[in-house]
Amino acid sequence: MGLVVQKYGGSSVADAEGIKRVAKRIVEAKKNGHQVVVVVSAMGDTTDELIDLAQQVSPIPAGREFDMLLTAGERISMALLAMAIKNLGHEAQSFTGSQAGVITDSVHNKARIIDVTPGRIRTALEEGNIAIVAGFQGVSHDKKDITTLGRGGSDTTAVALAAALEAEVCEIYTDVDGVFTADPRVVRKARKIDWISSEDMLELASSGSKVLLHRCVEYARRYNIPIHVRSSFSGLRGTWVSNEPQGDQKVEQALISGVAHDTSEAKITVVGVPDKPGEAAAIFRTVSDAEINIDMVVQNVSAASTGLTDISFTLPKADGHKAMESLTKAQPVIGFDSLRYDDQIAKISLVGAGMKTNPGVTASFFEALSNAGVNIELISTSEIRISVVTRADDVNEAVRAVHTAFGLDSDTDEAVVYGGTGR
Amino acid sequence: MGLVVQKYGGSSVADAEGIKRVAKRIVEAKKNGHQVVVVVSAMGDTTDELIDLAQQVSPIPAGREFDMLLTAGERISMALLAMAIKNLGHEAQSFTGSQAGVITDSVHNKARIIDVTPGRIRTALEEGNIAIVAGFQGVSHDKKDITTLGRGGSDTTAVALAAALEAEVCEIYTDVDGVFTADPRVVRKARKIDWISSEDMLELASSGSKVLLHRCVEYARRYNIPIHVRSSFSGLRGTWVSNEPQGDQKVEQALISGVAHDTSEAKITVVGVPDKPGEAAAIFRTVSDAEINIDMVVQNVSAASTGLTDISFTLPKADGHKAMESLTKAQPVIGFDSLRYDDQIAKISLVGAGMKTNPGVTASFFEALSNAGVNIELISTSEIRISVVTRADDVNEAVRAVHTAFGLDSDTDEAVVYGGTGR
Repeated sequence: MGLVVQKYGGSSVADAEGIKRVAKRIVEAKKNGHQVVVVVSAMGDTTDELIDLAQQVSPIPAGREFDMLLTAGERISMALLAMAIKNLGHEAQSFTGSQAGVITDSVHNKARIIDVTPGRIRTALEEGNIAIVAGFQGVSHDKKDITTLGRGGSDTTAVALAAALEAEVCEIYTDVDGVFTADPRVVRKARKIDWISSEDMLELASSGSKVLLHRCVEYARRYNIPIHVRSSFSGLRGTWVSNEPQGDQKVEQALISGVAHDTSEAKITVVGVPDKPGEAAAIFRTVSDAEINIDMVVQNVSAASTGLTDISFTLPKADGHKAMESLTKAQPVIGFDSLRYDDQIAKISLVGAGMKTNPGVTASFFEALSNAGVNIELISTSEIRISVVTRADDVNEAVRAVHTAFGLDSDTDEAVVYGGTGR
Repeated sequence: MGLVVQKYGGSSVADAEGIKRVAKRIVEAKKNGHQVVVVVSAMGDTTDELIDLAQQVSPIPAGREFDMLLTAGERISMALLAMAIKNLGHEAQSFTGSQAGVITDSVHNKARIIDVTPGRIRTALEEGNIAIVAGFQGVSHDKKDITTLGRGGSDTTAVALAAALEAEVCEIYTDVDGVFTADPRVVRKARKIDWISSEDMLELASSGSKVLLHRCVEYARRYNIPIHVRSSFSGLRGTWVSNEPQGDQKVEQALISGVAHDTSEAKITVVGVPDKPGEAAAIFRTVSDAEINIDMVVQNVSAASTGLTDISFTLPKADGHKAMESLTKAQPVIGFDSLRYDDQIAKISLVGAGMKTNPGVTASFFEALSNAGVNIELISTSEIRISVVTRADDVNEAVRAVHTAFGLDSDTDEAVVYGGTGR
């Protein structure tokens, strides 16, 4: 039996009971003959409480100190988890990101891992310990300052350690049973996916599926680490994510992996843009200079009579105000007519490598939406994904219609829904 | 102006308001031209809350993991303090014990500092920063594990850093105005001491005065670091503790520095010990093997008729049960008659280097107690201290009587009393 990396999110270790439950599960893996490395997030609301404290002393907390503060959260959970394991009669040692060799760049609050040197973890494992590692944190390569990895950081820690330690699998324990063909809170007949390719998972993650973040899947894809997403509550087999199917997983890939939706975006339309070279570039340079990531972009053919066109793009709602401000400021230079801001939109995406070789998919997708009476406002496609923007009000109905149309509905109402996690 | 080390206890940084208040005081010192290093304890009850969590997951938490857990407390307070200082427009960086170069032995929960290598602190100071250092913690020299220093650890951190950085002074900020001639909660007319020798302070600390712990004073004495104990609330000049008087401090030392009392001890009497060589040794070897520190020891002259004697000693109440158990087990071997346990005692000590050259002090001390109707049960003396054990009920009256008899009473009821601190 080989080495397993397990990651537990904040909702799995929300209190002493949760920690004891997780400790039992970890010991189970150890008893089954595995070497076990565990990556753990901060307990429940700890991070929010620390953020609240920071805001009480400083309206804009400094990055270095903010990271120092937040990393206290994992320090608490990992030490408690190690204690709970030792209380079950097994040896365990906890390690900070720095001690575990998680080396990052120096960008505080959203550092990127640039190297993993887990010498102390290897030693701890060889001595028979279960190694507990603080998720979400590392140490900067140049200044040796404590850094945090930003959203989804603990998952990324787990995958990065799994890669460095050449683990058999990286198990991501969460509060849902795996990756579903659609959000089970919207589609009661959503099915748990047994296996999904890294490629499809990447598209789902960037289309609004929240179970795994893009960044962590991308890391696992690059280092060819299989991820097993599963529930820390049910103990059921969850969803395997890997570049190729593993062992007994069904070899034939599904046509469609799933339907994702996202209501966190807004749409900005730049109206009356002169249809000449450099205009679109000027608009998107303005937005990018404000450090805003845009998602979908659509430009209509210009009306011959006026020589003017409209350009629409979507972006995170959180950045909406900043983008409108930057564009308004640049209006005299760029020379468009006006701006329209719309945050009542939803994005619905169909993902599946199978659509590469099935030209009918796009047509079926639009038909399904049309039959459900859902109006399409923007369209964008990649080789294995089709996304549309609709009214926010239509999103649930649209997702259900598409899910049914592509034969993804389960025979039973099997989906079990728990709360959501943050980090 | 030189380098100042300031230490703030948990009650000074109990909440966001406290942290902001302390930040202002630190910035004041910086504005006065000092280089400033700050050692900070965990906020208010944080440590107790963490201990409570630990006990929920494990009845006897492992030392290494317990230290990892507890050090999260200072991590939070130091990061918040650095943020609050930056919010006032000054540069600050926080450092863990490990980052600050506090190197300890490997005894978890009560590690001893064996070296301080504050390279990062020096760099931070040279770059114009205020350096904030986590108190109470270090890193073990051999295993690079996180350690904690036990009771009074933050004070010790401050003094050790002051020594390593050759600071002008180590300021210990607390919730009282300084060291008093007696506990102001007992003696309303207790006076704040302007200056006290390290030697006398050591005796007061081991006799029950809680403002400074023995360990921290001993460290400061060895490295000749002046300590200034003062209130973080009032901002008044407090008490200077140093080997020799500093600058304008009055050069002539007082006859008596103060009266200390201690109600945390119990007394064990071993009754009917055969008066022959090796008996006392056997008794104290038994107690010492149980890792119990004893304080006063008194052996009476044996009664000629029986050849038996009684041996009494005092020890922390917390160790009382363990000591009785060990001695009872050893009774058949040692061969004494019986054991008596008494936890209704108090120790009252008079401390002052002046008593070396004033033979009347002992007599005056006993007279004062006798006039107050206080019965003496045990007596023990050193060159600069006399201690007696009395009934616990008599302690307040005894302390007041002695305080008055040696002319220590202030002309006014000046003593201001706040709560007490732990770490």
